[in-house]
Amino acid sequence: MEYIYSGVSNRIFRSEIREILKWTRKPGVISFGGGLPDPSLFPVEEIAEITGKVLKEKGYLALQYGPTAGEPEMLEALLGHMDEFGDKATREQLSITSSSQQGLDLLALLFIDEGSPIVMESPSYLGGIQAFARAGADMHPIPLLDDGMDLDRLKEVLKDLDAQGRKPRFIYVIPDYQNPSGITMTLEHRKRLIALAHEHGVLLVEDSPYRELSFTGEMLPSLWTLAGGKGVIMLKTFSKVLFPGMRMGWMVAEEPVIEKIILLKQSVDLCTPSFTQLILAEYIKRGRMKHSIERSIECYGPKLEAMLAALEKHMPADVTWSVPRGGMFIWLTLPERIDTKEIFMTVIEHNVAYVIGRPFHCDHSGGNTLRLNYSFPSIEKIDTGIERLASAIKEIL
Amino acid sequence: MEYIYSGVSNRIFRSEIREILKWTRKPGVISFGGGLPDPSLFPVEEIAEITGKVLKEKGYLALQYGPTAGEPEMLEALLGHMDEFGDKATREQLSITSSSQQGLDLLALLFIDEGSPIVMESPSYLGGIQAFARAGADMHPIPLLDDGMDLDRLKEVLKDLDAQGRKPRFIYVIPDYQNPSGITMTLEHRKRLIALAHEHGVLLVEDSPYRELSFTGEMLPSLWTLAGGKGVIMLKTFSKVLFPGMRMGWMVAEEPVIEKIILLKQSVDLCTPSFTQLILAEYIKRGRMKHSIERSIECYGPKLEAMLAALEKHMPADVTWSVPRGGMFIWLTLPERIDTKEIFMTVIEHNVAYVIGRPFHCDHSGGNTLRLNYSFPSIEKIDTGIERLASAIKEIL
Repeated sequence: MEYIYSGVSNRIFRSEIREILKWTRKPGVISFGGGLPDPSLFPVEEIAEITGKVLKEKGYLALQYGPTAGEPEMLEALLGHMDEFGDKATREQLSITSSSQQGLDLLALLFIDEGSPIVMESPSYLGGIQAFARAGADMHPIPLLDDGMDLDRLKEVLKDLDAQGRKPRFIYVIPDYQNPSGITMTLEHRKRLIALAHEHGVLLVEDSPYRELSFTGEMLPSLWTLAGGKGVIMLKTFSKVLFPGMRMGWMVAEEPVIEKIILLKQSVDLCTPSFTQLILAEYIKRGRMKHSIERSIECYGPKLEAMLAALEKHMPADVTWSVPRGGMFIWLTLPERIDTKEIFMTVIEHNVAYVIGRPFHCDHSGGNTLRLNYSFPSIEKIDTGIERLASAIKEIL
Repeated sequence: MEYIYSGVSNRIFRSEIREILKWTRKPGVISFGGGLPDPSLFPVEEIAEITGKVLKEKGYLALQYGPTAGEPEMLEALLGHMDEFGDKATREQLSITSSSQQGLDLLALLFIDEGSPIVMESPSYLGGIQAFARAGADMHPIPLLDDGMDLDRLKEVLKDLDAQGRKPRFIYVIPDYQNPSGITMTLEHRKRLIALAHEHGVLLVEDSPYRELSFTGEMLPSLWTLAGGKGVIMLKTFSKVLFPGMRMGWMVAEEPVIEKIILLKQSVDLCTPSFTQLILAEYIKRGRMKHSIERSIECYGPKLEAMLAALEKHMPADVTWSVPRGGMFIWLTLPERIDTKEIFMTVIEHNVAYVIGRPFHCDHSGGNTLRLNYSFPSIEKIDTGIERLASAIKEIL
């Protein structure tokens, strides 16, 4: 029997990254792939205790269907959590999502028709590229500079589109400790970007999984807050600052957008689990999120330093890298003639793995780039792994 | 600022049902709306105990990212669970989903282009209609008879479409204790449907949330099993047979379909929570599902009998209803001149609520129908509520 698939089915693709990640499981390999939080940080005992309490006190609610927008208790907790990090919103401006990947899916459904132009940083988050590509977006990459996307190039692209009578459905950015580059958009840059977006009447989508993971104590205001909530949709998740295993995230947007998102989510999954919402709501209400984030920072800060020091010590002169101040990733640029996919198997023989850079570019450029994760491996493994990587690269060069 | 939405945004709609369900919260109202399981059946203590064990023994796994297709432990448990109810499959034929609504969403994305014909029972599940309508499907309703969809009419529709050079992307059916009608497709009918679908090379989508909830001890084989797994996609969920609060379901299909579903799901939500998968896997492995289902049957069987008896006793002669042998719903048909939406507010004044029938019809027919749920209210409330409903209807007639 022959199945007749939709147009969408031609726009979903097997990620090259997932294909090669399997090699990272080879015994003895130190992997800087993935984007996994350190599981030693997971507050397993407290979550077990809270789960017992939630089930005992409101099992009838926790195991039942819940509202599509989210459990009222969870939405309240989220408002408090946001407030602690400088972001204000109302309950009507929130919708719970099954982590921020669902937020990207909902935005793709709600805003993108086949051929709709959107604008994004290059490189950018693979999951965003996958969701937008699936919806048939015409993706316009803007090179990412040290302080954020190249705004001169952005102006040109907006002008070119305008000349064609087209307007991007949105500009997708990850302002803080960007995945994959580790780059943070400066305050000045944020303000200019908002002004430019407002001037052209273009929506900004702010994907913000890492903002709280600042290792310097400095935290820049979100685009949501800087724009006074106007023309910005912010995606948040607990995957990086707490743990990913409950797939819990939320979306912040102007009320008319959230209303549509909730209607849309009814056909997508009806509701996000009440069970895990009530557990996390209790965790947040106890004031434990701040503690968890502090522990993550204490854990990841030294790992970043160790990786930067090892890169400095071992890498040959013609390899460069980003110097993040938070998040989970460092971005390496090799000489142009090197393709990080082609050399991957040689590097694996040195028992170290990374993530290739090309899939993070919607225009398939970036063949000479790669991403390193430092949140998951131990400091010892970071030292050894970078030494191995450097030695492999030297050999190849 | 003006947002530019996608074509999809014009195909999502506020369900009339959800609009009027809010009235069911009026104090004193007995509601036969919703499709909620009885929360007294939720095994809260055992779930709390299992959660403690899972977090203690593998918290690092439970709170981490997991594979898109599902936790291997969960997939194994699901195969065992299916086997117990007569369905065989391999791990490569399964994908976990965030309840069966996500299964419907994934099928809509994978199979439906704007204008693609699909065929479905009329009435049918609202969540299916929402997902397919959102994707732009051209929905062809086939009247539901007492033994399943009208196969003569189905033949005609397939022939008409064929004459136009079109083929339905799939035929969507709920063979067991259908939502909303409570009707079960007979064995003979299942075989004829499969033969017809195979003859025309059309995929069957079998939505199967209620099959295990048989109150007579008789359980018909699934379409999946009858068709030897060929040309059938089956959607399963724990929402009705255990509880909905973890949003856990799965999809069974031929391997090439599952491969595409997994790629697609990566852009949709990356993965379903490992946390709740490992909890449910343990629950299933302990052999507790069968016990839970038996308890549900013991609870719902008498409720169904009570509702049928009350209908028999109180309803006027020109009201008819389905006589289900399992599931959660009874379907009422009123005289043609009555619109169950128009009379809803009058009925609410009698402190009883139902769900209007029209939204379950993709062609907006069925204005004189309504759905009654008996799984949630107590037997006492069922007696009183049906008496109230009958008295309201008599008054209106």
